[in-house]
Amino acid sequence: MSKLFSGKNPSLLFTAALRNDIIRITETLHEEIREERNGVNSLLREYLAERDYKAVADACTAWIKTWFAENGPSSPAVIGISGGKDSTVVAALCVQALGKERVFGVLMPDGFQSDMDVSLRVVKTLDIPHAVINIRESVSAVRTALAEGLGRADFPPQMLTNLPPRLRMTTLYAVSQSMNGRVSNNCNRSENYVGYSTIFGDAAGDFSPLANLTVAEIREVGRKMHLPEEFLVKAPSDGLSGRTDEEAFGFSYETLDTYILTGVCEDADVRAAIIKRHLANQFKRKPMPEFEWNHL
Amino acid sequence: MSKLFSGKNPSLLFTAALRNDIIRITETLHEEIREERNGVNSLLREYLAERDYKAVADACTAWIKTWFAENGPSSPAVIGISGGKDSTVVAALCVQALGKERVFGVLMPDGFQSDMDVSLRVVKTLDIPHAVINIRESVSAVRTALAEGLGRADFPPQMLTNLPPRLRMTTLYAVSQSMNGRVSNNCNRSENYVGYSTIFGDAAGDFSPLANLTVAEIREVGRKMHLPEEFLVKAPSDGLSGRTDEEAFGFSYETLDTYILTGVCEDADVRAAIIKRHLANQFKRKPMPEFEWNHL
Repeated sequence: MSKLFSGKNPSLLFTAALRNDIIRITETLHEEIREERNGVNSLLREYLAERDYKAVADACTAWIKTWFAENGPSSPAVIGISGGKDSTVVAALCVQALGKERVFGVLMPDGFQSDMDVSLRVVKTLDIPHAVINIRESVSAVRTALAEGLGRADFPPQMLTNLPPRLRMTTLYAVSQSMNGRVSNNCNRSENYVGYSTIFGDAAGDFSPLANLTVAEIREVGRKMHLPEEFLVKAPSDGLSGRTDEEAFGFSYETLDTYILTGVCEDADVRAAIIKRHLANQFKRKPMPEFEWNHL
Repeated sequence: MSKLFSGKNPSLLFTAALRNDIIRITETLHEEIREERNGVNSLLREYLAERDYKAVADACTAWIKTWFAENGPSSPAVIGISGGKDSTVVAALCVQALGKERVFGVLMPDGFQSDMDVSLRVVKTLDIPHAVINIRESVSAVRTALAEGLGRADFPPQMLTNLPPRLRMTTLYAVSQSMNGRVSNNCNRSENYVGYSTIFGDAAGDFSPLANLTVAEIREVGRKMHLPEEFLVKAPSDGLSGRTDEEAFGFSYETLDTYILTGVCEDADVRAAIIKRHLANQFKRKPMPEFEWNHL
């Protein structure tokens, strides 16, 4: 191409302009392909481009600051650090709001955790105090007690999947109580929409900075905060089932986020799957149903 | 006194009528003294007497039936049985609503529990299937992991007090998930009012039959259901601190219930103590605070 557009022939001036156009279009195409690979389709990209996620990061920081002033003026934020983007962005926001001395990271592997090094890099990058508390023995003790008490050990996968998140909550609250802390909830809007959390486990917490931000938006917030890309792009996984969240759902976060933010989901089956999950898990976000009676 | 009113002298007819009055008054006084000893003062007694707790028991039973029809048509109610009146009344209501085969009691002592025999009599009296799952080893495993991870073992009492309720929640939900059950929340209105519960521990649950009934009212409901008195009158205790709830509060449930139901509390200090606890713990019953932002 450089050969084609080289030379000084004035008749090629038009062609040179065309060349610039072609280069621009090609670059845009490459950019689009790159972004598609990153899981951001054009509708979603358009939605994100129209919004100022630097302003969102600042507003969320201000919200955390105000919440702590009212609910724990000298308390640290206690954050379960998984190595995923949600806990990383929450921790970064808390550092911005409270200062790094008032943010405490808790790494809670269940035995060996393959991406433990990522979690350690997160707390190192943010330069926050942290502790590593392995929950393996706790999980094992609860399972043994259940097997003895129920006289069986053939437990359904769903039961075993929810044990570690509840023991992490128990551990995290104990750490928090040892330092008069406040526990962050790191669930995001995408997970909340389809109920992808363990109730009274990772769905617990005292304050929730990301509950109204989708996965794609949290990445944008993280980028505006100049967090290393490696902390933002890892495929979300529950770290339990050996599958990514997307494999468990049968649809991508990109598709889910596009549907949540723009209402568009062209594949009718996927749309039905999203709605089904949404309706089946709504109870997790509602107040506990109570019997009420007329006192008079 | 019997000598004074004996004799056949007609002039004593008036005195005989007086005698019956005196006997009636004396009996009433004795009744009042007895009820005062049971922790029911006159204002509260009046409030309770004016209401039909048999109707409350029936309405609550109907509510449980409807809730399960909509949220678990073939699920059992899974109930943590403590030997106290709340879990006993919840279990009895569930038996009435679902049949005893669909109620599963879970006894979760932490090591040795002195009133374990009461819990066993509850499940025997109600004739419901049950399991005993000791949480001692689970508590111990979490404490060891915390000590190792934090490099200290001098934990504040509040932290240690909340561990067992959260491990009971974790255990109870695991049992429930092993049988597609629904977990009852056994908190009552009195405890809820002053926030006397462990958030994400005993404050957890899928449905809450007693949330709007005070301690005194739950006793009335239990009596109308003909539950043995021994299950209803035991002084409520968290089973953790070695103190009764009332010792921990510094005021009695009678005083608290009277204040909640009638608005009367003559001791200004006690009234202030109730209000202080109420305000300090309101967060436990509110939805988790979330950062919200204008999406456009």
